[in-house]
Amino acid sequence: MAKSKFEYVRLFETEDRCLPNTWIVVRVDGKGFHKFSAEHGFVKPNDGRSLSLMSHAATAVMEEFKDICLAYGQSDEYSFIFRKGTQVYSRRSSKLATNVCSLFTSAFVFHWNEHFPTLKPLYPPVFDGRTVLYPSDQNMKDYLAWRQADCHINNLYNTTFWALIQKGGLSPSEAELKLRGTLAGEKNELLFSQFGINYNNEPEMVRKGTILVRRRTPVPLPSGGTREKSQIFREYRDVIGEDFWEENSHLLAA
Amino acid sequence: MAKSKFEYVRLFETEDRCLPNTWIVVRVDGKGFHKFSAEHGFVKPNDGRSLSLMSHAATAVMEEFKDICLAYGQSDEYSFIFRKGTQVYSRRSSKLATNVCSLFTSAFVFHWNEHFPTLKPLYPPVFDGRTVLYPSDQNMKDYLAWRQADCHINNLYNTTFWALIQKGGLSPSEAELKLRGTLAGEKNELLFSQFGINYNNEPEMVRKGTILVRRRTPVPLPSGGTREKSQIFREYRDVIGEDFWEENSHLLAA
Amino acid sequence: MAKSKFEYVRLFETEDRCLPNTWIVVRVDGKGFHKFSAEHGFVKPNDGRSLSLMSHAATAVMEEFKDICLAYGQSDEYSFIFRKGTQVYSRRSSKLATNVCSLFTSAFVFHWNEHFPTLKPLYPPVFDGRTVLYPSDQNMKDYLAWRQADCHINNLYNTTFWALIQKGGLSPSEAELKLRGTLAGEKNELLFSQFGINYNNEPEMVRKGTILVRRRTPVPLPSGGTREKSQIFREYRDVIGEDFWEENSHLLAA
Amino acid sequence: MAKSKFEYVRLFETEDRCLPNTWIVVRVDGKGFHKFSAEHGFVKPNDGRSLSLMSHAATAVMEEFKDICLAYGQSDEYSFIFRKGTQVYSRRSSKLATNVCSLFTSAFVFHWNEHFPTLKPLYPPVFDGRTVLYPSDQNMKDYLAWRQADCHINNLYNTTFWALIQKGGLSPSEAELKLRGTLAGEKNELLFSQFGINYNNEPEMVRKGTILVRRRTPVPLPSGGTREKSQIFREYRDVIGEDFWEENSHLLAA
Repeated sequence: MAKSKFEYVRLFETEDRCLPNTWIVVRVDGKGFHKFSAEHGFVKPNDGRSLSLMSHAATAVMEEFKDICLAYGQSDEYSFIFRKGTQVYSRRSSKLATNVCSLFTSAFVFHWNEHFPTLKPLYPPVFDGRTVLYPSDQNMKDYLAWRQADCHINNLYNTTFWALIQKGGLSPSEAELKLRGTLAGEKNELLFSQFGINYNNEPEMVRKGTILVRRRTPVPLPSGGTREKSQIFREYRDVIGEDFWEENSHLLAA
Repeated sequence: MAKSKFEYVRLFETEDRCLPNTWIVVRVDGKGFHKFSAEHGFVKPNDGRSLSLMSHAATAVMEEFKDICLAYGQSDEYSFIFRKGTQVYSRRSSKLATNVCSLFTSAFVFHWNEHFPTLKPLYPPVFDGRTVLYPSDQNMKDYLAWRQADCHINNLYNTTFWALIQKGGLSPSEAELKLRGTLAGEKNELLFSQFGINYNNEPEMVRKGTILVRRRTPVPLPSGGTREKSQIFREYRDVIGEDFWEENSHLLAA
Repeated sequence: MAKSKFEYVRLFETEDRCLPNTWIVVRVDGKGFHKFSAEHGFVKPNDGRSLSLMSHAATAVMEEFKDICLAYGQSDEYSFIFRKGTQVYSRRSSKLATNVCSLFTSAFVFHWNEHFPTLKPLYPPVFDGRTVLYPSDQNMKDYLAWRQADCHINNLYNTTFWALIQKGGLSPSEAELKLRGTLAGEKNELLFSQFGINYNNEPEMVRKGTILVRRRTPVPLPSGGTREKSQIFREYRDVIGEDFWEENSHLLAA
Repeated sequence: MAKSKFEYVRLFETEDRCLPNTWIVVRVDGKGFHKFSAEHGFVKPNDGRSLSLMSHAATAVMEEFKDICLAYGQSDEYSFIFRKGTQVYSRRSSKLATNVCSLFTSAFVFHWNEHFPTLKPLYPPVFDGRTVLYPSDQNMKDYLAWRQADCHINNLYNTTFWALIQKGGLSPSEAELKLRGTLAGEKNELLFSQFGINYNNEPEMVRKGTILVRRRTPVPLPSGGTREKSQIFREYRDVIGEDFWEENSHLLAA
C-alpha cells in the first residue's frame, strides 16, 4: 500500500529483544489496589472473590500464551514465567509486557461479574507490568521464592492487623502501632493467644498464594485409551524448597 | 517489613528511563482486531460505536495522565503524546506503556455497554502498547502526520473495498483484485462514478481520525466571572500542515 | 564461507542504535591520570606537553570521523560532538564509543614522542569512553558549557592549590585545608595578594580548555582563485554564552 | 566543589548495567586490518610478530582486569571473558568495552617495538570493541567454539589462498576463483597434492588461535614450600569439545 513521506518516523522505534536462553518473567501489579479494594468493600484481610478473579484472569493469559509454563499470584499481583527458549513476539520486552498486561486487565474486567455477581466495578481497574530476565534456573526459582516469601510476610501481618481491628476492636493506627517491630513468631503467638487463630490453619491459598502450572496429562479418548494434553492446574503450595521443582521437573526442560 | 534472602533478584530489574527533554509517544494497537471486529459484526468499513468507544477509553487515559497533552486515534489504534518535560513514573518506558495500555484496555471493556448496548463482547479484547521517543517538535508532528496519512490511505481503500462488496456485489477477493495497484485518484473516481460517493463528503471522523487535545478554557463560576480549567476537546481535522499547530501552540511549550 | 553450528551465539548481540536526530556526544576520560601524571612528572597545575598531545590525539579522531563537527578538551578528557544526522556505524552507541576511544588512545601513544621527546611512557595510558545523547541544540550547548564551567572551577582551584605549594611552601594537605570552602572570588584574591598572579592573565588554553571546530574555509588554488575546504581549527575561548554559536552557526545546521 | 547550572546535562547519561549472573564477553576487533597489514607488509597468511603482539596486549588487559578468567585470540581479534559474578565497574557495558578496548589498543602501540623492532607503525592502529552477554556456561563455551571454528575456517582458506599465490604463482583473483565453493577436505587435498603441505602440521597457534587462561599455581617460596598464585598461561589448543573444560573446571565456578 502507498506510503507517506512521514514514514521515516518508524526509524525512531527501538528494538528491545530479551537476551536469548533466559527466563522471561512478566509481573502485573494492581495500580492503587489498596484504594480500589477499600472503595469496593473487599473483605479483609483477603477477599476470596478478588483472588479467584485474579486467577481467572491469569488463566486467560496462560491459555493465550502457550509458552508461559508457570504463573504465581498473590494479593493484587501475578507473575508469568515464559520458558527460556520462547520466541513469542521475537522476545520483544515491551510487546510481551503490554500484551500480558492488557489481556490480564481485560479478562479481569470481562470476568468480574462471575466473581462479584452483586457488585459493579466503580471505575476501570488498572495493572502495570514489567519484564525481568533471569539467566539461571536458580535465579528464576529464587524469584518465585521471593514473591512467595513476600506473600507469607504480608499475609501474616495483614491477618494479625485485621484481627486486632475486627476482633480486638483496635483502630487501624492502634493496630499498626501494636505490630510495629514484631517478629513472625510474635504475630503467630498474638493471633493464637488473643484470637484463638492458629495461623497454620489459615487457607493455603492466602498463606502460599496461587500457582498455575502447565502440565501434560492423559485425557481419555471416546474410543477408549488416552492421549496427552497440555492443561493448566491451580495449586496452593510451597515453591520455596525443592519438592515443587522435583515434581515439576518438566518446567526446567528447555 | 522483614525481607527474605531472595530479595537479591530485584537487582535483575533494569532501568529504562526515556531520554529527558524528548517527546514520549505511547501507541496502543488492537491485537487481532480484524478478527475481533468480524466476530462481533462491526459495521464496515467503519463502525461508529467502536470508534466512539475507542475515544471514550482514550479520554479516560488522558484524564488519568495529565501530562498527556494530545492523543490521536484511528481504526483500532490510539497514540498518546506526553509533554517533553514529563516526569511521570520517572519517564520509565515500560511503566508508561503498561499503565497506558492497561487503563485503555480496562476502560474499553468497562465502557463497552455504553457504546454497544445490545452486544456483549465474546472474549476480552487486547491492545498492545509501545513507547517511541521523538527528539524534535517536527519529528513529533511528523509522527502524527504519519498516523493521519495512514488513516487516509487505509480509509480510502476500505471505503472503496466495502463499496465494491456491499453495493457492487463483488466478493472480497474480487474487490481486492480490482483495487490492487490503484492510486488514490483512481479510488476516488471509482467511488464517485460507480457508487455516487464523493469521498470528501465522508465524515471527517473516519477520514481524519480523532484528535483529543488538552486546552485551558474559561469556565463560568457560580459567583459570575470565569476561571481557567484544563479540558479535553475531541476534534476531527488535519494535523498535517501548520494550521493545527498554530492554533494549538500551547502544546509545543515545554 | 562455511559457517559453524556455533553461529547461533551471534543472536545474543544486542542492537544499541542511538535515537535519530539527536546530538551524539562521545567523551573520553583518562583512567587514573592523577597517578599517571604524577608518575611521569607532569608539570603542575598544567603540563602544556600533555595538553598539546591530548589535542593532537583529538585532531586525529576528527580527521577520521568527518561527522564530528566539534570537540572540546580540558585536563585529561575530550568530548566529541557528532552532528545530529550522522549515520556513521548506523549510530551504534558502542561502535562509536569504542572506535573513538581506541583511536584517541592509539594516537595518544603514537604521537607521545612528538610532545614528550625526552620522556618515555612507563606503561600504556588508558582512556574510557561513553556515549551521551542530547535531543536539543540547547542541551548540547549546555553540555559543552558544563564541561567548560568544570574546567574553570578545577583550573582556578588547581592554580591556587599549586601556587600555595610551589610558591607558598605549603604541603598538599595544608593547601587543601586552606582552600576548603573558599569561593571563586576568594581564590582570585588569594592568588593576587599572596602571589601576584592575576588569574585572568593565565593562558586561555588552561582557563577555557581547547575547542576543535570544523569549518569550511577558502583555500587558494594553484590556478588562482579559491575553493572551499573543510578544516579543523583549534581555539581557546568561551563556549558559554551565545557569541561562539553565532559565529559558528553552521554547526547547528542539520 | 562548586557546581554549575549546566550540571543537569548529566541526567541524560543512561545506565547500561549488564544482567547479573551472566557471562560478559568483550571482543576487540582490528579496524581495517586487512589494509593495515598490507601497508605494513605483514607476512601472509600469518605474521607471527603480529600474533605475538596481539597476545602481549591481551595479557596486559588480563593483568589489569583480574575478573577476566579467559581470553581467546585469532587473527586481529581478541575476546575477553569476565567471570559471571564480576562487579567491576558495576558491570556497566560501555565502561567495560571502552576500558578493555583502550587498554588493548594502548598496549598494542606501546609494545609494538618489542615485536616489530625494525618496523615503525605508519599510523595509529584502531580496535573496536563490543560487549555480549551469555547466560549459560554452554552458551559461553559455544561462543568460544564459534570463534575457534571461525579461526579454523579462515586459516585453512588463507593458507590455501596464499599458497596458490606464493607457491602456485596465481594472482589473488585467480586464487579466489579457484577456491570459490570448495569444501574443507578439498582445500586440505589441494594443499597436500599441489604444495606438499599437510595442514595438520601447521603450527597450532595459527590453526587453533591463542588461549590465555588464568590459573592458580603453586609458586616456590624463598623459605622453601610454595604458595598459590594466580597466573596467566598461554596455550594453543582446542576449546571445542569438553577436554579443555574438564581440565579447567575452575573457570566455570561462580
